[in-house]
Amino acid sequence: MGPRILVLNGPNLNMLGVRQPEVYGHNSYADIVDLCRRTAASRGAEVDVRQTNDEAELIGWIHDVARNRDFSAIVINPAAWTHTSVAVADALVIPEVPVLEVHISNVHARESFRHHSYVSPIAAGVIAGFGPAGYGYAVDRAVDLSA
Amino acid sequence: MGPRILVLNGPNLNMLGVRQPEVYGHNSYADIVDLCRRTAASRGAEVDVRQTNDEAELIGWIHDVARNRDFSAIVINPAAWTHTSVAVADALVIPEVPVLEVHISNVHARESFRHHSYVSPIAAGVIAGFGPAGYGYAVDRAVDLSA
Amino acid sequence: MGPRILVLNGPNLNMLGVRQPEVYGHNSYADIVDLCRRTAASRGAEVDVRQTNDEAELIGWIHDVARNRDFSAIVINPAAWTHTSVAVADALVIPEVPVLEVHISNVHARESFRHHSYVSPIAAGVIAGFGPAGYGYAVDRAVDLSA
Amino acid sequence: MGPRILVLNGPNLNMLGVRQPEVYGHNSYADIVDLCRRTAASRGAEVDVRQTNDEAELIGWIHDVARNRDFSAIVINPAAWTHTSVAVADALVIPEVPVLEVHISNVHARESFRHHSYVSPIAAGVIAGFGPAGYGYAVDRAVDLSA
Amino acid sequence: MGPRILVLNGPNLNMLGVRQPEVYGHNSYADIVDLCRRTAASRGAEVDVRQTNDEAELIGWIHDVARNRDFSAIVINPAAWTHTSVAVADALVIPEVPVLEVHISNVHARESFRHHSYVSPIAAGVIAGFGPAGYGYAVDRAVDLSA
Amino acid sequence: MGPRILVLNGPNLNMLGVRQPEVYGHNSYADIVDLCRRTAASRGAEVDVRQTNDEAELIGWIHDVARNRDFSAIVINPAAWTHTSVAVADALVIPEVPVLEVHISNVHARESFRHHSYVSPIAAGVIAGFGPAGYGYAVDRAVDLSA
Amino acid sequence: MGPRILVLNGPNLNMLGVRQPEVYGHNSYADIVDLCRRTAASRGAEVDVRQTNDEAELIGWIHDVARNRDFSAIVINPAAWTHTSVAVADALVIPEVPVLEVHISNVHARESFRHHSYVSPIAAGVIAGFGPAGYGYAVDRAVDLSA
Amino acid sequence: MGPRILVLNGPNLNMLGVRQPEVYGHNSYADIVDLCRRTAASRGAEVDVRQTNDEAELIGWIHDVARNRDFSAIVINPAAWTHTSVAVADALVIPEVPVLEVHISNVHARESFRHHSYVSPIAAGVIAGFGPAGYGYAVDRAVDLSA
Amino acid sequence: MGPRILVLNGPNLNMLGVRQPEVYGHNSYADIVDLCRRTAASRGAEVDVRQTNDEAELIGWIHDVARNRDFSAIVINPAAWTHTSVAVADALVIPEVPVLEVHISNVHARESFRHHSYVSPIAAGVIAGFGPAGYGYAVDRAVDLSA
Amino acid sequence: MGPRILVLNGPNLNMLGVRQPEVYGHNSYADIVDLCRRTAASRGAEVDVRQTNDEAELIGWIHDVARNRDFSAIVINPAAWTHTSVAVADALVIPEVPVLEVHISNVHARESFRHHSYVSPIAAGVIAGFGPAGYGYAVDRAVDLSA
Amino acid sequence: MGPRILVLNGPNLNMLGVRQPEVYGHNSYADIVDLCRRTAASRGAEVDVRQTNDEAELIGWIHDVARNRDFSAIVINPAAWTHTSVAVADALVIPEVPVLEVHISNVHARESFRHHSYVSPIAAGVIAGFGPAGYGYAVDRAVDLSA
Amino acid sequence: MGPRILVLNGPNLNMLGVRQPEVYGHNSYADIVDLCRRTAASRGAEVDVRQTNDEAELIGWIHDVARNRDFSAIVINPAAWTHTSVAVADALVIPEVPVLEVHISNVHARESFRHHSYVSPIAAGVIAGFGPAGYGYAVDRAVDLSA
Repeated sequence: MGPRILVLNGPNLNMLGVRQPEVYGHNSYADIVDLCRRTAASRGAEVDVRQTNDEAELIGWIHDVARNRDFSAIVINPAAWTHTSVAVADALVIPEVPVLEVHISNVHARESFRHHSYVSPIAAGVIAGFGPAGYGYAVDRAVDLSA
Repeated sequence: MGPRILVLNGPNLNMLGVRQPEVYGHNSYADIVDLCRRTAASRGAEVDVRQTNDEAELIGWIHDVARNRDFSAIVINPAAWTHTSVAVADALVIPEVPVLEVHISNVHARESFRHHSYVSPIAAGVIAGFGPAGYGYAVDRAVDLSA
Repeated sequence: MGPRILVLNGPNLNMLGVRQPEVYGHNSYADIVDLCRRTAASRGAEVDVRQTNDEAELIGWIHDVARNRDFSAIVINPAAWTHTSVAVADALVIPEVPVLEVHISNVHARESFRHHSYVSPIAAGVIAGFGPAGYGYAVDRAVDLSA
Repeated sequence: MGPRILVLNGPNLNMLGVRQPEVYGHNSYADIVDLCRRTAASRGAEVDVRQTNDEAELIGWIHDVARNRDFSAIVINPAAWTHTSVAVADALVIPEVPVLEVHISNVHARESFRHHSYVSPIAAGVIAGFGPAGYGYAVDRAVDLSA
Repeated sequence: MGPRILVLNGPNLNMLGVRQPEVYGHNSYADIVDLCRRTAASRGAEVDVRQTNDEAELIGWIHDVARNRDFSAIVINPAAWTHTSVAVADALVIPEVPVLEVHISNVHARESFRHHSYVSPIAAGVIAGFGPAGYGYAVDRAVDLSA
Repeated sequence: MGPRILVLNGPNLNMLGVRQPEVYGHNSYADIVDLCRRTAASRGAEVDVRQTNDEAELIGWIHDVARNRDFSAIVINPAAWTHTSVAVADALVIPEVPVLEVHISNVHARESFRHHSYVSPIAAGVIAGFGPAGYGYAVDRAVDLSA
Repeated sequence: MGPRILVLNGPNLNMLGVRQPEVYGHNSYADIVDLCRRTAASRGAEVDVRQTNDEAELIGWIHDVARNRDFSAIVINPAAWTHTSVAVADALVIPEVPVLEVHISNVHARESFRHHSYVSPIAAGVIAGFGPAGYGYAVDRAVDLSA
Repeated sequence: MGPRILVLNGPNLNMLGVRQPEVYGHNSYADIVDLCRRTAASRGAEVDVRQTNDEAELIGWIHDVARNRDFSAIVINPAAWTHTSVAVADALVIPEVPVLEVHISNVHARESFRHHSYVSPIAAGVIAGFGPAGYGYAVDRAVDLSA
Repeated sequence: MGPRILVLNGPNLNMLGVRQPEVYGHNSYADIVDLCRRTAASRGAEVDVRQTNDEAELIGWIHDVARNRDFSAIVINPAAWTHTSVAVADALVIPEVPVLEVHISNVHARESFRHHSYVSPIAAGVIAGFGPAGYGYAVDRAVDLSA
Repeated sequence: MGPRILVLNGPNLNMLGVRQPEVYGHNSYADIVDLCRRTAASRGAEVDVRQTNDEAELIGWIHDVARNRDFSAIVINPAAWTHTSVAVADALVIPEVPVLEVHISNVHARESFRHHSYVSPIAAGVIAGFGPAGYGYAVDRAVDLSA
Repeated sequence: MGPRILVLNGPNLNMLGVRQPEVYGHNSYADIVDLCRRTAASRGAEVDVRQTNDEAELIGWIHDVARNRDFSAIVINPAAWTHTSVAVADALVIPEVPVLEVHISNVHARESFRHHSYVSPIAAGVIAGFGPAGYGYAVDRAVDLSA
Repeated sequence: MGPRILVLNGPNLNMLGVRQPEVYGHNSYADIVDLCRRTAASRGAEVDVRQTNDEAELIGWIHDVARNRDFSAIVINPAAWTHTSVAVADALVIPEVPVLEVHISNVHARESFRHHSYVSPIAAGVIAGFGPAGYGYAVDRAVDLSA
């Protein structure tokens, strides 16, 4: 059986497609779930894609990976928490699996407060501005790192 | 039928009247609800006043405005999240209705970390230090902007 | 007899309506005088609305309040001096009456040098981005604080 | 009957023992609960030890102290929220009981973002780097301050 | 009839020739007026050269350009106000004519507080360290931009 | 005929495999050329992969894209110039084709001077820490953006 | 005939005695004039003590010293302009006489924006927090430097 | 025989009880010596408590620990040197025994220059604001770390 | 024979007319060469106008001036190197001839990294935002300074 | 019997007259002792003037004032310790007598590290750049404050 | 056969003796080559001394050391690139031989931008302000480290 | 008779060999004394090598050089005082002999607070990271400068 990848999405990403299409494009959240699944399938892997606006829920999911050892890598778009949540970054260290950080828009070209990420220093890789396609590349890379 | 205004309150505002009266005054949270209602009524409008200490709940309420299109403006006292929550500020952009930011105390005259707001750059207007009366002015202004 | 409120306006506000309508709107300075008068009247109060491009004249007017004790509150839009004049802020402390700071545009969403105000730390309240309506709310609040 | 101390723990502390033992040591969360209980008992006091990854829940617990007046002091390890949550720090002021801040690791010797605490300025005391033993000292001190 | 250029000079420039000749050279203020006139004449244009130490007077002159539409461009040496007067910079935006900023000395090679200009971001061009000759070039350029 | 992608590499990348394998891995520069070619081929596209330690040469290659219009996108690993070369960033704007920025290591987790990129604000996307695989993803994305 | 000292006072100093007595003490402006006169007289010197809230007037007075050569030293309390007026500092260099800077309160112990002075780098001496007595010492020193 | 703990006190601590009782409390230096002794005794350990205002003497004492290996841990309240003495911090590294840093007042809630400690990065633990009791906890902890 | 002026152009300026016309205008590099020649000719002087994307070549040209003493002044548009090349600035000091710094666009109104110039502190004068005309003024000034 | 003033001098002041006469003038340390004595005598007061290069000795002298209550004010030139010694500043608070801070040269016009003083915030007054005469004024003021 | 040392010189050093003798002294580049040779010879070692104004050439020379393993240490005066070239610093890590950094003038006493070096953190040693003699000491040390 | 060089060592250097050998190497303080002596002897010079942990003693030694004129240069390793002691730096200016600053380790590659030196701006030269050998080079250079 192939590797299992957990794909996590932070606040407001459930509104994708509705939220500022000029920044985030016209793809919906469902499109992203789909892309992750298709990419994983093409590599003989499996994904579990989740979204939450509740930091405690996100942290709980990450803790479960440490407890259950049921995922070999985490792909995460921490959205706004990228820049503000030490708690999420601290949690991501616990499971000791590779973490791939994804941003749909090019955060490096936006407000300066979006240039700093608490997650990046503990991530294996970071991808930004590749649009929803970034999820596909991150899942692909996560499968590589699961080997 | 008149405009409907959503009035949102962030963390600790439920404790109003109990919390540091020398900073926030002696009005209770109920007084503020009351003032918002009376102001709205005097303008032929309606308010829905809510408070939460749960960021996810607040974000959910804001998303609902984008989904249901049932409010023409948002009045928000983000309290402590003003200074720390990119997630709330990001959410407030989604419904594409005017946002009025209210602070009971004059945040500009307090600790320097209270001088920066993630919400202000996306707000239509900001009012601080007018005490509970600020809510009344913000609701009034929200009705104007709902026209 | 009702309270008397002094409404002061700093540099360039005499050009209102002419100056950058995309930032300051289409209301003229006369409209603001009018709004202040109507708001005051509705509260049984009186306003004296003045504008100057001369810092010395503005300081003189503020000193006169301290000398003559003929106003119970000051509403001020210090305009550009908000960010540069310690002299105006120092003067505003002298009369020992409540000071309400008004900005037509949302200074918090403009150039970073407009985010700092020498007046705010000594103001009772600050309102920005409510357009000319901010004057009305400030006069209203000033009447409350005159009680 | 002796004083009652509320011991609060922020995000990720439930994973103690699992999380980075080279930083936090090999003690589990249960060991800490135990130590707090034993220390309190030895002083004729009682503790209620809680942990949450949910900021809203933590704030609610703190509000309850203000409402119920059932604890004479709070010992808190705010973990990641130390550095990011104005909301928790604002809440801690409300009950008007002494607050003792505990960190297991020496935060002063770690990443620079861990050197700043929103809680410290309103705490009675701060202890860091004493390992789990810090909880014992903080409970002991809390009993003293309850007198 | 040719274009009319308004040449404005800020504080202390009336003392030119007297003030620090090692910094500002030996030309007097009259020499500058002369150079502006000769340059304008050679281009079939006209200049009105003024100096003031009174910020209100300077702002008034700029407002007049907006009201009377009698000048097609402004050449300004804001002197010390370059670095401190938001009011002058705000005024210069109102007439909606090209603004050329002139400094006799090379401000970029002097004290660091002289490296920042409130006027530059709204100027069409900036010239510094060309001595009095800078006025000639600025007037020349102003004529070009008046076309 | 499919799209043509230009893949550019900055200083020291010719030493790949030799240089700090603990940071950059054991792949050689030839492996990267290979990966780019295979990825492009799989998409029916073509790549031209180049490396230089000479800023002038790199700028010349970018200018040629603007002159010859023979590439539909640029993938670039600017290496050390990422952080220091305004000239390269200025050049990259000229051809008006999408630019994808690649870093083999996770620059966000290294020395702070590597956190700032002059290229990112003008890039379509940025990928870092995905190892040599990042080139593959960037070429893939470049083909998408060439459509 | 003895030396003549010009004593200049900036904005709000005319309100001395009225303005924040807890900061500036109970002496009036007239007391200061008196002290300066008595100090000068005791040294066989003469003072001319002036106050203005008008920066242009202050600059004019300073220019006159350069033109008329009728004072051998300047004692100045620039008040709020200390921290904001490059124009006044630039003017003070022109007469080429010693400048003594006086502050009644200890500006070094007040708000941080009062810790920087544009005048100090060009002053012969600076005295702060000696109360009105500082004027006496400054006049005394000015007489010494006039020798 | 039990462990021997060296307790060191920096400048001004000999004046304890005299110095700012509103900050440091009413306990005298003798009380602290006493507390250290009692705590050590209760653990079967011994303390040597010293104070000096002379940096060279303090450094000499620390060097002696390295030379004589007669103490198993150091408890130190570096007082003012906490914030200014690299020499003391450099010395504390030499003996290679655990260092516990104590501050009577909560330095984190005082002037910002007291928030930085040269000692903390090399300390095993830091305790502040626990009053004199902090010495007791630090000695207790030092005994634990001496095991 | 008249003075000889060396006009130097840094990276990307060869693409003038192609590169971002909304920033740099529609003039080509040839137009600038032409303008420099015509201005020089009108003054009885000669220019040698060069451009390079190669820092070493630029430095070599500047060294040659020091060696051959064949130019009496340098006009330079260092383009991107303005902000990043200490080497070019260091070279420009060597020939000991006046240096005039030209920027086509108003760098003071663009990204903040374009506000600092390594060349300005050693330049005789700086002109920015005058468009290609700035070259003409700089050559004219260079002829004056060659006298 | 008149008031007794303690005059303290920090490091290197014993070398006065030898040390950089272009900065500190040609007066020797003995001249300063003399001036202090004469000034005190003229006011019916007494001074004790001391100098040390040993911080511990200086702190000891200050502690003695607190213990013996034999001086009614302290005049101090902390010299280099002004900028680096929290210990001296902390000591100066203990005796609870007025502190007058003196600097011979105008520290505000020298290196930027000399612009900050740890002593100023706790001083009654600060005088700098008045040369040795500053001691006389400070002693005079100290006598006033001793009343 | 003795060790071989590569001595590299960055931009403008070929002009030594011509360039600012008040900063760099009167020695020529040839004198430095000579000194290096003599120092090496006296130690039974050999030097190869090179200079370039071309960053690519310098990087190439450094790469060659990694490829050919023909030098046991590098002595480098990176001149202006010290402060700006991450590319040179990145290259210097590749050969894995000791690097000695030399500056003729005392860069620590010059403009603040010369206080930071990209090379120092990866150098074995740094010498500045010893004049040309610094090359001799660096070569001498390089021979030691080659053992 | 040859020149006499004073070699001064700051705090903790007496512990050399004991203190962090991974940073400072295995040489003892005696080895350094020896090296200085041998270097001096080989040049026909004499050294006096001293160490102290007492700032006052160090300052006294430096003053003696000014008084006795018995040394022609000072070699100093100020150790921790490098970064904190304005007093030592001020003292070193007094004797008006060349000062050579030595650091055994490469301070530029350690904690950022070790990158700043109060001594460097007044030193003739600075050497760091050459190990104990740096003393030899500094003494050698001091002899040169004594000529």
